[in-house]
Amino acid sequence: MRLVRTGPPGRERPAVLGEDGQGHDLSALTTDIDGAFLSGDGIERARRALEAGELPPVDLGGERFGAPVARPGKVVCIGLNYSDHAAETGATPPAEPVVFMKASNTVVGPDDTVLVPRGSTKTDYEVELAVVIGRTARYLGSPEEAAGVIAGYAIADDVSEREFQLERGGQWDKGKSCETFNPLGPWLVTPDEAGDPQELGLRLWVNGELRQNGHTKNMIFGVHHVVWYLSQFMVLEPGDVIDTGTPAGVALGADHIPYLTAGDVVEVEIDRLGRQRHVIGQA
Amino acid sequence: MRLVRTGPPGRERPAVLGEDGQGHDLSALTTDIDGAFLSGDGIERARRALEAGELPPVDLGGERFGAPVARPGKVVCIGLNYSDHAAETGATPPAEPVVFMKASNTVVGPDDTVLVPRGSTKTDYEVELAVVIGRTARYLGSPEEAAGVIAGYAIADDVSEREFQLERGGQWDKGKSCETFNPLGPWLVTPDEAGDPQELGLRLWVNGELRQNGHTKNMIFGVHHVVWYLSQFMVLEPGDVIDTGTPAGVALGADHIPYLTAGDVVEVEIDRLGRQRHVIGQA
Repeated sequence: MRLVRTGPPGRERPAVLGEDGQGHDLSALTTDIDGAFLSGDGIERARRALEAGELPPVDLGGERFGAPVARPGKVVCIGLNYSDHAAETGATPPAEPVVFMKASNTVVGPDDTVLVPRGSTKTDYEVELAVVIGRTARYLGSPEEAAGVIAGYAIADDVSEREFQLERGGQWDKGKSCETFNPLGPWLVTPDEAGDPQELGLRLWVNGELRQNGHTKNMIFGVHHVVWYLSQFMVLEPGDVIDTGTPAGVALGADHIPYLTAGDVVEVEIDRLGRQRHVIGQA
Repeated sequence: MRLVRTGPPGRERPAVLGEDGQGHDLSALTTDIDGAFLSGDGIERARRALEAGELPPVDLGGERFGAPVARPGKVVCIGLNYSDHAAETGATPPAEPVVFMKASNTVVGPDDTVLVPRGSTKTDYEVELAVVIGRTARYLGSPEEAAGVIAGYAIADDVSEREFQLERGGQWDKGKSCETFNPLGPWLVTPDEAGDPQELGLRLWVNGELRQNGHTKNMIFGVHHVVWYLSQFMVLEPGDVIDTGTPAGVALGADHIPYLTAGDVVEVEIDRLGRQRHVIGQA
């Protein structure tokens, strides 16, 4: 099943997409797709209602898609989690996951405008598999337990300003939290429909040119390991988002690849998770 | 004026303290002290209602104090922002603010139990002046504009696990976001009552022994500079919290100072902002 939020920013309405791609209004079940909905067995309730034919069809054609979960409590990110990306940035592959955060108000819809920050010359893209948490995770006993706390998957573009991140002193967060820096969606895809999270191809184009063409089988730390690992250091809550790292091909990785500027068009795709298209603007 | 939230975790009720220390119930004005309340001129409405005698007195004796703002959208932190603390950790004073983040679900009440994480041997304390944002701040024109977006001030203990932060690979966030790692409060003190934010003494005791005894005049980057600076890299929103750095005296800073263990009692004080007392437990 795929869950979506459609409508103007801040006034999105929840819906699900059936196997035939037909939209069905979820408003009778919940006002929003958020932590409370997810922790209250919302996905299973939605599934039962859909199968029982209780959800009225709705036409989503021409609607804006918001992020498929309302403002997360936190957005946690894994750095250097693909061997090819670690190599292109000159970094040693990490011995354990590298963890950093993005401000959760960076999350926007999959096709919303992404803004180059004022003073930026190194705004970069990163296609990533995003995990949405469905149940509280605190000191999980093993990576095997992680499957039970995952609500589903989505596409994220972990937009990054490399000068702010690496050349302005201190920690990466400074270049990761700029306004609009986390397009998310279009769909929240449940695990049964997404399939094995380590069997997904990821692709990103800039102005039609393929820049990233990776595969989640090349993650250094797989999705279940990452969720288990994070739960040793923080309490993950329903609605939280984890960006699990990016494969090779970012602008930071090669001198001849230009950074993003206003007017560029970024398209992002992950197998079975849909496609984003965002135009770059200037803050 | 001082704003508080009292009652059991998750069911706190809002109140204000008048100049005489008498509590007054705010429930008629708002259900909570949060971003929506702050952005809707809530503090000025509370002040007018208090002055008009419209807020019924309430006895807060024996009540638990929650954090004085509901779950923030984000907790942004400034590292190495006191010259004496930078020196004790062996770090060069930064040329511009070092920025990192804590998960916002680390925020607990000022006197709640703080948990040493499982597997931790280096849990450390940090008294800090916390700034609570009252209006959206995006690309502020100058540090002078920062005063207009600050709702008030509170005490924070930026609890930190030094092995997770510094020895486990990657970024500091890993040692900053553990459960209960940000006691906040007891009060949200409005700027008129807090006075000049660069004229506040900060103190922290462990088991009655004074460990930190600093002063905000020794900040490398003052409060208004920090808020202006952050607004160039991210959008600050009402209810967000900024921990502005800690003075010298942390356990990381000297071989002979022990880290925290279960049973320790930490007391924290800032001039005009009140006092915290939290007992250390084990996760």
